[in-house]
Amino acid sequence: MTVGILGAGQLARMLALAGYPLGMNFRCYDPTPDSPAAPMAPQTIGNYEDFDALAKFASAIDVLTYEFENVPVAAARFLAERAPVYPPPAALEAAQDRLTEKTLFASLGIPTPPFVPINSSIDLKTAVTKLGLPAVLKTRRMGYDGKGQTLLRANADIVPAWEALGSGSVPLILEGFVPFDRELSLLLVRGRDGGSVCYPLVENQHREGILRQSIAPSENVTPALQAQAELYGDLVADALDYVGVLAIEFFVQDGRLIANEMAPRVHNSGHWTIEGAETSQFENHLRAVAGLPLGSVECVGFSAMLNLIGTTPDANAILAVPGAHLHLYGKSPRPGRKLGHLTLRADDRQALAHRLETLRALIPDV
Amino acid sequence: MTVGILGAGQLARMLALAGYPLGMNFRCYDPTPDSPAAPMAPQTIGNYEDFDALAKFASAIDVLTYEFENVPVAAARFLAERAPVYPPPAALEAAQDRLTEKTLFASLGIPTPPFVPINSSIDLKTAVTKLGLPAVLKTRRMGYDGKGQTLLRANADIVPAWEALGSGSVPLILEGFVPFDRELSLLLVRGRDGGSVCYPLVENQHREGILRQSIAPSENVTPALQAQAELYGDLVADALDYVGVLAIEFFVQDGRLIANEMAPRVHNSGHWTIEGAETSQFENHLRAVAGLPLGSVECVGFSAMLNLIGTTPDANAILAVPGAHLHLYGKSPRPGRKLGHLTLRADDRQALAHRLETLRALIPDV
Repeated sequence: MTVGILGAGQLARMLALAGYPLGMNFRCYDPTPDSPAAPMAPQTIGNYEDFDALAKFASAIDVLTYEFENVPVAAARFLAERAPVYPPPAALEAAQDRLTEKTLFASLGIPTPPFVPINSSIDLKTAVTKLGLPAVLKTRRMGYDGKGQTLLRANADIVPAWEALGSGSVPLILEGFVPFDRELSLLLVRGRDGGSVCYPLVENQHREGILRQSIAPSENVTPALQAQAELYGDLVADALDYVGVLAIEFFVQDGRLIANEMAPRVHNSGHWTIEGAETSQFENHLRAVAGLPLGSVECVGFSAMLNLIGTTPDANAILAVPGAHLHLYGKSPRPGRKLGHLTLRADDRQALAHRLETLRALIPDV
Repeated sequence: MTVGILGAGQLARMLALAGYPLGMNFRCYDPTPDSPAAPMAPQTIGNYEDFDALAKFASAIDVLTYEFENVPVAAARFLAERAPVYPPPAALEAAQDRLTEKTLFASLGIPTPPFVPINSSIDLKTAVTKLGLPAVLKTRRMGYDGKGQTLLRANADIVPAWEALGSGSVPLILEGFVPFDRELSLLLVRGRDGGSVCYPLVENQHREGILRQSIAPSENVTPALQAQAELYGDLVADALDYVGVLAIEFFVQDGRLIANEMAPRVHNSGHWTIEGAETSQFENHLRAVAGLPLGSVECVGFSAMLNLIGTTPDANAILAVPGAHLHLYGKSPRPGRKLGHLTLRADDRQALAHRLETLRALIPDV
């Protein structure tokens, strides 16, 4: 089976590395030459508006998936006429627009921060009055890793924020600021047959909008909270007739889950599963997409994941830490760029905490 | 760092899959086009006597290793003048000839079956008288997976065995038959700095000379036996100034280790380490070769490995077994050919035994 992947970044790279043992082959499609996945998945270089190139790409694959949610829906729909596409393009559509996404959550009874669509500076002023401050002004589309959003603390921030996000040139959304106790993410995998499994909830730390650290399983999750998250996950996945890995990021406020956003793909907060779960998110995504049985999502001990952003540490120091695993993406360093990640695994939480302290000391800017 | 691998079979394939996360790139060299490693390690097609092609290959790599022990020593030595080669060609030389290999073991005080070099039919008759029957007549070189050997049960077997192995056209060795209680293998990893680590001993089952099943860790190993095996392993590795994974297969007879053979490479009996150990043999081989710190060799629960020989089972059935992991090598089916393996992992021995029963029932010819 040849799996086509739209996008050839680190997620495609890790998908291919996980899929070869299953007997799969890979091709990827990305406008940027020499992408991280290219060494293990022959890359077609093309843009997402080039329908001739997309058609040719589709002709060489058995099933198609994508590694990032900003693939144009038109491209996904065009490809879906030529090969099975999982997750379905409707999921892509829902995840690409923060308004659609939050409206979907709300329609399913899943709590979200209060939100108001913003199409004019008048809208914004009205919305600020309605939601109060602090609030977060975001572009509805193309936001990731903290890009395309700005925090409004006081009325004086309204005009600068409006201007910083394009003065209405793109659709915006204002969201009430959630003073959360913690951030958790759910990684759900749904098979072609509609059956789903969920990894234990992951606890995440972001800084400057970029994920820095994940701990799995979170020690702050009760069985009831896990069950609640899985219920929400299933509601979303069933509504979209989803196939593959779906990530939903939640805020936890006073023990209550508030859905922040979702990603219709394997997710950075699931990278620990390569070593820390019986089946990795990458393998499980491929199993789902290929119509194979889903693998066990049980944790194998306790794991931490640290992103390597902008620079990579000395491999000699890192690899000397017991249970530390290095994952480099083959990218050239650039400030703010995700160059790789580390997974740290231990058999108990205490050993994990101890090793994590050692490891963090070796990484600049973690 | 670009790692060159001589040979592009499944071991090279699994090395490459393990090495990309460490930021390595790969190239392999093999006379057979479209080898299993080719999709993830660009393959130079050439034979091992083509020194021009070898020189060109060496010019594009930073360090060289090999995935099978029958690489001509002349090729390895030629390459060693152009790039660091690990394990050292001397290890290749020692492992390629059963007489050299057993002489090395014996010189280090490591018990072996009794053995006699055979250069003539007279030698053979004398040796049979000396060692008694049963005994095993083997070619000294190029034997693997039970090829190039034949069991002598009675005097009537002597002439047919002599003729079956070429009537003296290749050097032979007669080895006393060891009525062993079990077969164990040691997987040792030695770094460039001379430090070594050993995985817990693996218990193996062969049939028709081909490895069928490994269980790790073996439940029949005392700490004293483990220590003895590690001592033997270190003696061999130190004698050869070894770098990388070294596998030594032992018979156990009355609680005593008898060295049968060694392989200067990652080994089939170590495939379980991908899921069943903190660091896989493939990653640890690469860490050693690259001069990086060796990874933890601790078991993660209990594992079984089953080889898929000649045919592959239905992936749907296999992957529905909890803790089962499929590893296909991308080879076309052929009787007796190793097409892949399964690893089964569980948190306790009882669960492993139970799942193993389920899994074995799904595999023809295991």
